[in-house]
Amino acid sequence: MLKVKTIDIDFGAVEVVLNHNDALEFGLNPHDRIRVKGKCGSVVAIVNTSESLVGEGEIGVFTEIAKKICVRNGHKIDYERVGKPESLGAIKKKLNGGKLSPEEIASIVRDIVSKRITLVEMSAFVSGLQAVGMDLDEAEYLTKEMVASGKTINFEAETFDKHSLGGVPGDKTTLIVVPIVAAAGLLIPKTSSRSITSPAGTADRMEVFAPVEHGINSIKKIVNKTNACMVWGGAVDLSPADDALIRVEHPLSLDPRPLLLASIMSKKKSVGSNFVVIDMPTGEGAKIKDKKQARDLARDLIEIGKRLDMTVECAVTYGAQPVGDAMGPALEAREALSTLEGNGTPSVVEKATAIAGIILEAGGVVGKGKGAEKALEILESGKALKKFREIIKAQGGNSDVCVEDIEKLLGKKKKIIKSLRAGYVTKINNKAIGNVAKTAGAPHDKGAGVLLHAKGGTRVKKGDALYTIYAEEDFKLKDAEELALKTKPVLVEGMLLEDIPPTFLGRH
Amino acid sequence: MLKVKTIDIDFGAVEVVLNHNDALEFGLNPHDRIRVKGKCGSVVAIVNTSESLVGEGEIGVFTEIAKKICVRNGHKIDYERVGKPESLGAIKKKLNGGKLSPEEIASIVRDIVSKRITLVEMSAFVSGLQAVGMDLDEAEYLTKEMVASGKTINFEAETFDKHSLGGVPGDKTTLIVVPIVAAAGLLIPKTSSRSITSPAGTADRMEVFAPVEHGINSIKKIVNKTNACMVWGGAVDLSPADDALIRVEHPLSLDPRPLLLASIMSKKKSVGSNFVVIDMPTGEGAKIKDKKQARDLARDLIEIGKRLDMTVECAVTYGAQPVGDAMGPALEAREALSTLEGNGTPSVVEKATAIAGIILEAGGVVGKGKGAEKALEILESGKALKKFREIIKAQGGNSDVCVEDIEKLLGKKKKIIKSLRAGYVTKINNKAIGNVAKTAGAPHDKGAGVLLHAKGGTRVKKGDALYTIYAEEDFKLKDAEELALKTKPVLVEGMLLEDIPPTFLGRH
Repeated sequence: MLKVKTIDIDFGAVEVVLNHNDALEFGLNPHDRIRVKGKCGSVVAIVNTSESLVGEGEIGVFTEIAKKICVRNGHKIDYERVGKPESLGAIKKKLNGGKLSPEEIASIVRDIVSKRITLVEMSAFVSGLQAVGMDLDEAEYLTKEMVASGKTINFEAETFDKHSLGGVPGDKTTLIVVPIVAAAGLLIPKTSSRSITSPAGTADRMEVFAPVEHGINSIKKIVNKTNACMVWGGAVDLSPADDALIRVEHPLSLDPRPLLLASIMSKKKSVGSNFVVIDMPTGEGAKIKDKKQARDLARDLIEIGKRLDMTVECAVTYGAQPVGDAMGPALEAREALSTLEGNGTPSVVEKATAIAGIILEAGGVVGKGKGAEKALEILESGKALKKFREIIKAQGGNSDVCVEDIEKLLGKKKKIIKSLRAGYVTKINNKAIGNVAKTAGAPHDKGAGVLLHAKGGTRVKKGDALYTIYAEEDFKLKDAEELALKTKPVLVEGMLLEDIPPTFLGRH
Repeated sequence: MLKVKTIDIDFGAVEVVLNHNDALEFGLNPHDRIRVKGKCGSVVAIVNTSESLVGEGEIGVFTEIAKKICVRNGHKIDYERVGKPESLGAIKKKLNGGKLSPEEIASIVRDIVSKRITLVEMSAFVSGLQAVGMDLDEAEYLTKEMVASGKTINFEAETFDKHSLGGVPGDKTTLIVVPIVAAAGLLIPKTSSRSITSPAGTADRMEVFAPVEHGINSIKKIVNKTNACMVWGGAVDLSPADDALIRVEHPLSLDPRPLLLASIMSKKKSVGSNFVVIDMPTGEGAKIKDKKQARDLARDLIEIGKRLDMTVECAVTYGAQPVGDAMGPALEAREALSTLEGNGTPSVVEKATAIAGIILEAGGVVGKGKGAEKALEILESGKALKKFREIIKAQGGNSDVCVEDIEKLLGKKKKIIKSLRAGYVTKINNKAIGNVAKTAGAPHDKGAGVLLHAKGGTRVKKGDALYTIYAEEDFKLKDAEELALKTKPVLVEGMLLEDIPPTFLGRH
């Protein structure tokens, strides 16, 4: 019997902490598993050890488990040793180059969702997918198991969706695409993620206008009323295995192809999408380097889509610099609202109408080749703006919001970064400019971010403003400025990029 | 500035815990890295978050780091964000199938030893080695970097060593081999591990006779006096990268070939061995299944040895059942002492003299083919026993120890497991019998373990004793007995193993 002491570091798995001496005495090593029995159930937990956090005879139980099995500080609980879960065998099989059966894939997904495997074991799984990969059969099973592991939503009508592979900052096109498509009469229930590595995710942007955390019933109501929604997928428990795997993919900066496929397609299948357009930002500094790589990935996405009864279309877009001028939740929200009001940055308008156009064509609103034109017409007519306000209202926001309201949210601390020379903006480094916006506080500080005053190709004079950093706190502005000076995210060069003298050849 | 709160869960990396809200506010995610500055230095630490373990404005600092940078509870410390270590790029390169350069391997080993990478990242490295492997160049660099990462010992004379790949329980041969070799005048400074998965490691067995934790100077003195030592390698910081990697290899039950090679060879190189005989227990239930697999591994061990200026010889031994009759520290110590006194179990004597013989031949004590005979002669003459007592004395133990002294250490709780039928012992399951000994308390409880009364091939009557379980505590004896009844580690069958009737063919 051990005395409970609740603890709450989040290890991502069901864990307990034993005193080092007790663990030795019981013959338990860190990472071994024990079943702990509480007042209302039992759970398999991973063993950690500590010399002082818990004393001898005590067991540290993480708050989440303590609730689940109904134990509190000071309760006495029993434990028994249990073996490793069968999914570990499947993970090892993958590392040894094997093809996983549907049952093996199911066991892995099940153990991930129920937190029966540790981050160290999940890391081995993600590493196996990176090193060995999966064929399309395995990727199909993985996707289906991920769908089965979470909740699903079904709408009675044909349902459209869009997804971006991400990697290019400032991409607020979803906020324009969804209202255009819904205004044209098609159903587009959009669930999005918050930022993982960028200055803002679609959910972070939309949250500037309205609450984004809704349950499934609420989402259905919003969609029934407006044909659309823009909500945070993380609140709905769609494909929870995917959310769990991100916890190791992100720190390892790994995104193995089979997980990329399963992640996107399981989320889309969970909301019952029939047609999905996938935006693939491509170019230097984007996730996808060139069209060849884009086509290769598109082939797999389309094939997995087919196997899941979804039609997938892929849109390869220009991703070598940010989309529009603004990065950071409030700055991007302002740019999106301006665009819907008819004052959009050209790159945002062009990208949004192109993608909305693909959906309009797929939905039979207009014929092949007429989608983008129709989307622009809906945008310019003000119908998309009207629809956007309807969605804001249905989600519980202020539908009368105007650009000035959002301006009030922008960070009061500002720093204009100027060009040190005359020339042309030859490059904007996606990652570096995104890091400046994040260092300034985005996405947590809604008013933080970066506003570009010059994009690629723009001619600038010495002393011209290149971009403004916005922050809510002085020390973050200072850190962002320092990073900006160090990493120089906006490159200005003369038309003469390099001077190669005639002696060049002789040097070799 | 954050207020320090010391914590001591051992994550295997340098970690700190921030309050969940602070982490959001600072834009830090779990697994991000920050540099924390204390009164006497700074250290890069991995971020964890908690909702209640540390409050806002507090930072949980693990005891080990707190000591290192001189901070205590309540101190205020500063932090700054830092990027991922370069070794992560190398780990990713391996996962993507690449060949690592010496510099990349060095960066990984350096970051492992300085605890700059997390268990999740180490898991990705071990997984990469499992899935992709390493060629012999990489394995050579890895071994050399592991040696360079820790301390080394140099003896002035030619140095001999032995190592067992393990996997077969009850293998106390080192306790016989080392005294025989040293009695013959050769230098054999033996560092060993404690048990990782078995009922006892060589260090656990030797500890029954004498202290095994010695520093490098103490080891040198012992060896100068006796030609030998039997100490715990973990106390000397030889190849610490290897010790760190075991922390993920063990929970994942992975032992990728390049790490196996680097682990063994780096430890041997660190103690300056010139000649190493590697014992490879082979057979059903052992780590190595057959002679083909043994030869394949031997080729790599010999080649890496060459590249590190060591002569390696491999001894493929019978590993399908335990060596000798005893498993568990005190039981094995008793069997080893009895063997040195001339009352040995035949399998222990045969294995020990065969391996000692290889070393005697390599050291030029006798000619080719005469080693085992010479080793037996030394054993039977009592010279090995005398040498063993010298080593015990030099290490600070009682050199007058007799079998009765050790018997006093055996667990008082005993259970004899009897055969339920007449027949022959056809199989002893290494893993199952080892688990019974461990469940009884071995190796932590020195007196716990299993003593076999019948080995493979022995004829038994119904009711004959098969083995006795020894434990120091009643509940452990009960648990071990239950496991024994469930897993049946000793299989008794009649000479007729299966009755195949004439109708057999017709059924197909």
